[in-house]
Amino acid sequence: MSTDTPSDTTSEALRPEARGPRGFQDRRGPDLIAERRIVERVSAVYERWGFEPLETSAFEYADALGKFLPDADRPNEGVFALQDDDDQWMALRYDLTAPLARYAAQSWETLPKPFRRYAFGPVWRNEKPGPGRFREFIQCDADTVGSDRPEADAEILALAVEGLTAAGLDRDQAQIKVSNRKLFDGLFGAGGINDPAQRLTALRAIDKFDRLGWEGVSALLGEGRLDESGDYTKGAQLPTAVISTVERFLASAGQASLSRAETLSAVAGAGDLGAVGEEALKELQAIDTALGIMGVDQTEVRFDPTVVRGLEYYTGVVFEAELLLPTTDDKGRPVRFGSIGGGGRYDDLVARFTGQSVPATGFSFGVSRLAAALRASGRDPAGEVRGPVVVIAFSDADMAHYLGAVAELRAAGIAAELYLGRAGMKAQMKYADRRGAPVAVMLGGDEIAAGTVTLKDLDAGRRLSQAVSDNAEWKQARPGQQTLPRDQLVPAIHAILEGSSITG
Amino acid sequence: MSTDTPSDTTSEALRPEARGPRGFQDRRGPDLIAERRIVERVSAVYERWGFEPLETSAFEYADALGKFLPDADRPNEGVFALQDDDDQWMALRYDLTAPLARYAAQSWETLPKPFRRYAFGPVWRNEKPGPGRFREFIQCDADTVGSDRPEADAEILALAVEGLTAAGLDRDQAQIKVSNRKLFDGLFGAGGINDPAQRLTALRAIDKFDRLGWEGVSALLGEGRLDESGDYTKGAQLPTAVISTVERFLASAGQASLSRAETLSAVAGAGDLGAVGEEALKELQAIDTALGIMGVDQTEVRFDPTVVRGLEYYTGVVFEAELLLPTTDDKGRPVRFGSIGGGGRYDDLVARFTGQSVPATGFSFGVSRLAAALRASGRDPAGEVRGPVVVIAFSDADMAHYLGAVAELRAAGIAAELYLGRAGMKAQMKYADRRGAPVAVMLGGDEIAAGTVTLKDLDAGRRLSQAVSDNAEWKQARPGQQTLPRDQLVPAIHAILEGSSITG
Repeated sequence: MSTDTPSDTTSEALRPEARGPRGFQDRRGPDLIAERRIVERVSAVYERWGFEPLETSAFEYADALGKFLPDADRPNEGVFALQDDDDQWMALRYDLTAPLARYAAQSWETLPKPFRRYAFGPVWRNEKPGPGRFREFIQCDADTVGSDRPEADAEILALAVEGLTAAGLDRDQAQIKVSNRKLFDGLFGAGGINDPAQRLTALRAIDKFDRLGWEGVSALLGEGRLDESGDYTKGAQLPTAVISTVERFLASAGQASLSRAETLSAVAGAGDLGAVGEEALKELQAIDTALGIMGVDQTEVRFDPTVVRGLEYYTGVVFEAELLLPTTDDKGRPVRFGSIGGGGRYDDLVARFTGQSVPATGFSFGVSRLAAALRASGRDPAGEVRGPVVVIAFSDADMAHYLGAVAELRAAGIAAELYLGRAGMKAQMKYADRRGAPVAVMLGGDEIAAGTVTLKDLDAGRRLSQAVSDNAEWKQARPGQQTLPRDQLVPAIHAILEGSSITG
Repeated sequence: MSTDTPSDTTSEALRPEARGPRGFQDRRGPDLIAERRIVERVSAVYERWGFEPLETSAFEYADALGKFLPDADRPNEGVFALQDDDDQWMALRYDLTAPLARYAAQSWETLPKPFRRYAFGPVWRNEKPGPGRFREFIQCDADTVGSDRPEADAEILALAVEGLTAAGLDRDQAQIKVSNRKLFDGLFGAGGINDPAQRLTALRAIDKFDRLGWEGVSALLGEGRLDESGDYTKGAQLPTAVISTVERFLASAGQASLSRAETLSAVAGAGDLGAVGEEALKELQAIDTALGIMGVDQTEVRFDPTVVRGLEYYTGVVFEAELLLPTTDDKGRPVRFGSIGGGGRYDDLVARFTGQSVPATGFSFGVSRLAAALRASGRDPAGEVRGPVVVIAFSDADMAHYLGAVAELRAAGIAAELYLGRAGMKAQMKYADRRGAPVAVMLGGDEIAAGTVTLKDLDAGRRLSQAVSDNAEWKQARPGQQTLPRDQLVPAIHAILEGSSITG
């Protein structure tokens, strides 16, 4: 842009550059509306299921987030932190679970118990940004705090299925795989592995089963593994006998054809799971029963002992929602879409504050990621989004006529606007196109004098312009254009909008 | 809470205290739902008027916000700022206008022009918190960027009226007062006052007219003023002749009984407004005409030359929405509620980045403040909010029956939940009450054996408990309780819910 025009109000040297910070995005248009629809539809389901909304503040004290490092000058492990006037460190929340735990601990006495809440909103990660990897994104969570019943887990699973369906996925396009951390607790206990750090290393190795297969996982369970890039990862150092049990255990199930009950039988027969593992099986049995009553079948939620999830705080049932569709990348190559959400039982998060264990279970998904899954599944919610009807401004003298038309349309519930710039007809038609307008309303001098209005069906125009190759013929035909009595404005546009939602 | 129970998992010394940061709030329950309804209803209006949603990131570079002080170590004037890995200062947005200006400057080439967007979301102010004064709150804005037409201002005003009405205010409960900064620009210019700083000081003095009256304002326009607390504020040092013109100007209008056109005549006759002031009058005349066409009358939007607004960036039309109702505080004393929103024309904000002046106009309101105004006006949107139907859990053996009932209710579109804790009947009824449940569903052993279900209409119970004083009689009557065939569950609850929405 030229900077030495008469309207230049600031000298160039003092001007800041107009740019958003690294790793943050601005969202607008159909993509934003599509994400909002997901949140609205999922929220409606969550409220129908008796989960109430909660909004905690963006900031938490850094120690409450559990990311404060006592030996460091400032908290910086993945969070955005700053020091308040009173020298306390605050950090922006990096998920919605930690603030829930803080809130529940703080408000426990006055809350209805169990406390069932859903939440959506931005979370912030102070990580290196990359393509498609942002430092701010919207999460949506539902949790039940204060119930140790397996029915609470089952309800969260059924709720997740219903939420994904409400968002637009067909019931056979996603599947939630469920297991129980305590199966491994029992297996490790029976094998004499009692060090929590060693158990966590082993669980994180098993979490890579999908990607590395048994060969890679067994190396990580034992001495360690050299990956293709030449990096060496130290293993969990499990004894060979325990590694063999894990192998049998993982091989025992994970077949999609097995029913939930059959999977449990196979798991139970894989080896000694100890008392803790038996308890885990009983919980899964109760979950299976409750899911059956709630009409959630095997294709929607199945048991799969390879699911462990890497997060340290899970204490029981864990689950992961996956897109089942074959998806392709920009170049049409098939890609595995992978996880679109997950969750599980975390009975110790509130205890961080109070010392009292409070059972809790929940499900979480990223809204942008679910929108991407919907696009991959051929259900682009952005495709449903239309712009407003645009009334064209021909002459300053006739503004009253344009304003009257636009007010009439809005009063009839039709999204509409008057073009308020100062450009000519051609630029206004381009504007209407950019706005995704279904119809342009034209009240030129001739129309006003004759008591008529001309409507241009822009969707019909777009369809025809793809069909007609001869440009001259195209222009003469004025496709989708009609002139009708002025008092027919609203019904005629209603008719076009109904038609375009069927054929468009 | 006791900390030495067997479930104690963390030693007390290491436990963080469960508390939210100073000046931040957690929101839940009916109040949160009420604020969400305001945002939903207002958003629906804004979209119907052809404004598209935009969400910018929480962070902006500090220089883009215009709060960066080159002589200070770090930006700290009212914003939350931190330094990124690459040493650039980022700050959380303190309003939605500065990010819009940055976004418009950055994306100008590809945007539909004029660019009409609405936005809602949290903004952050690093200020001293106080009662009712938070450091994070939700704003909702609508702006048109790239139109210099007075019709764009008129549309924003009409939109504000429609938005406040959709939120729940009656049309006579709020009024928007409108003026034009350029009236004062003209008046000052004609009086030989050309120093921008002196003009801004004078405008800020006039902005206090409501609170201080003419006596206080005239002191602030002249030498200065000693207030009741003993603080001295230096005045704008205007010559006596100019102060007299301002006095005539302010006295000329501001009467609620004058029509918009009459106010303009009175203002025009108050003194020499110069060419700039005449232009301002013409703009207001065009706004009056457009408002008339859009059906916005004098009681909804009136002209009032005392409105100036303190913000530096306004360049033309300014407006302020006020609650008209007599309101009372907690102790029943009458209070002036004051402004519930405002806005105006700011033609230079985009130019900060590009050097090119881009005309823009918009309206903004705080969602919590509007919710408070609705409560003050007797339209508490929280009053409409109901909790879910609660199914009581009597026995672990009968969970299947409870789950079946709750699934049936949800499938019928009724918000419902099963109590998933482990407490007894009495605690469960208290739970249902805390949840704001309209109905409790009881499937005890007797009911299950007989194929019946017992419903307790909790609203009827609440109403009766206020009417009946004899507690024994009350308990015997079991008000609002009915036992009916199990297959009547859904229609019976529908009937109760419809009844309670009429009588409740």
